[in-house]
Amino acid sequence: MRIAFCCTDTRAEPWLQGLGQALPGAVVEVWRPGAPAADYAVVWSPPQQFLDEQPGLKALFNIGAGVDALLRLRLPKGARVVRLDDAGMSVQMAEYVCHAVIRHFREFDGYEADMRAGRWSFRKPRSRSDFPVGVMGLGVLGARVARALSVFEFPVHGWSRTPRTLDGVRTHHGRAGLPDFLSSCRVLVNLLPLTPDTRDILNRDTLGRLMPGGYLVNVARGAHLVEEDLLALLDSGHLAGATLDVFRTEPLPADHPFWRHPALTLTPHTSARTLRDESIAQIAGKIRALEDGQSIAGLVDPVRGY
Amino acid sequence: MRIAFCCTDTRAEPWLQGLGQALPGAVVEVWRPGAPAADYAVVWSPPQQFLDEQPGLKALFNIGAGVDALLRLRLPKGARVVRLDDAGMSVQMAEYVCHAVIRHFREFDGYEADMRAGRWSFRKPRSRSDFPVGVMGLGVLGARVARALSVFEFPVHGWSRTPRTLDGVRTHHGRAGLPDFLSSCRVLVNLLPLTPDTRDILNRDTLGRLMPGGYLVNVARGAHLVEEDLLALLDSGHLAGATLDVFRTEPLPADHPFWRHPALTLTPHTSARTLRDESIAQIAGKIRALEDGQSIAGLVDPVRGY
Repeated sequence: MRIAFCCTDTRAEPWLQGLGQALPGAVVEVWRPGAPAADYAVVWSPPQQFLDEQPGLKALFNIGAGVDALLRLRLPKGARVVRLDDAGMSVQMAEYVCHAVIRHFREFDGYEADMRAGRWSFRKPRSRSDFPVGVMGLGVLGARVARALSVFEFPVHGWSRTPRTLDGVRTHHGRAGLPDFLSSCRVLVNLLPLTPDTRDILNRDTLGRLMPGGYLVNVARGAHLVEEDLLALLDSGHLAGATLDVFRTEPLPADHPFWRHPALTLTPHTSARTLRDESIAQIAGKIRALEDGQSIAGLVDPVRGY
Repeated sequence: MRIAFCCTDTRAEPWLQGLGQALPGAVVEVWRPGAPAADYAVVWSPPQQFLDEQPGLKALFNIGAGVDALLRLRLPKGARVVRLDDAGMSVQMAEYVCHAVIRHFREFDGYEADMRAGRWSFRKPRSRSDFPVGVMGLGVLGARVARALSVFEFPVHGWSRTPRTLDGVRTHHGRAGLPDFLSSCRVLVNLLPLTPDTRDILNRDTLGRLMPGGYLVNVARGAHLVEEDLLALLDSGHLAGATLDVFRTEPLPADHPFWRHPALTLTPHTSARTLRDESIAQIAGKIRALEDGQSIAGLVDPVRGY
């Protein structure tokens, strides 16, 4: 069995070693143009040429949560695209989002800044009922984030393409359910997959429907957000701020207006990182299952886009 | 029935109005020297003279979580001291502590500072198993905080005076159990009541037993912490930092070395604020129960100190 490793921005050595140990007998190699065709591939943002050289590929394992970049390419016929099941990402997302929502709601950023300036300050406590939080996307990551937010007794709403039921979460669905969902929320957390349907979904119209003083947390993809529309709604005062981990262009270009905007908290695409050891164990398990003719979880529907 | 309100640093009007509405027929007044003696008192840091003028007091309701300041006074004979049951404090504590622990573990402070400086940075992800968190004090607040930390899959240890069992928490107890507890933890969260036994409990010896690169979150009382010892352990590099909400003197004095210390995150005693409406409802319920001869929760043991 031959496994090709073709991941941009990733140090190959520990992956090759881990996969080799987990799948004895398999040849695991970094792909180079002209290398022998593989049975399986472990990929992150591979070049089109890699895919064009893989006529016999059974499955592609995507090591990040989003398959949007991969699905924009021409895939080898018959190759299944597989997302990993969580692999430690959902707890990281729950951490990132709860940290951002609590920090905004409790004004810890303001208190810390006061103390750094030598001021022992007082702010009127805010009421949790004035800060309903909406989670867009209720897959593995979104459901976990919504549950974690409920631990802190925020009113939690959820929105997904198709109907979902989640304990303690008021769920909405479909385009028809979007306006009601948005107007019920003050804080909006985006965890949608990026598809033609969801590109630019965070715009002047949708973000404008949030309760006044709204707040955005974007941890999905930069292309979900129309960046000028966010800036306009911050300027108008309708939105109070945003925490952004993803951007239309990454790294964020040097002349981008987001840098140092006082109402924005930025992080460099670090909300949920691929954890190598957990990912390797999963990929090996899924390859063994496929070789044994068993079904596996995480198959991507290329038409639906996730 | 006469209820005296005697709370330092608290605007009386909404309390008088709320208690009056909840207990029709009761006379609710702000205490002034020489006022008629009361049946019940709602207090926060009252002067000794107030207590000396209350021969017939049945119960004192303390509107903060800590009764340490109250128990240092001479109390009227027969007057019970009552703490409120939670009243929205435990969720606030869970928020404060999870925010502080996640922020330190995930280095969000560092990432945000990098982005403010125009740097798209990369840091090696840390492993959750290297960051066991210990919670000192497993009462209503400590138990809630420990449960909330487990949601984020941190290994959680707990320490209390007497044995406790908590799902998903490895518990230790008593002075004899303290060294093992401390050496099992990298992050230490203090939620103990302040008593003669726990004063100065966070010192060079105890904090020195934490795993190297330890981190302290103090949300209980400033007098739990020997402040010079914390500074010495930060200087030596044994501790990586601390988030402090409470201080031996509050407001923190202008010349205190904690201000602007680069390894300290400070907030002005805001981790869990008394929520007025919930507190009023509880006090009224407990007064009605006592008048009906029923038992109530929250009675303080003056010898134990909480």
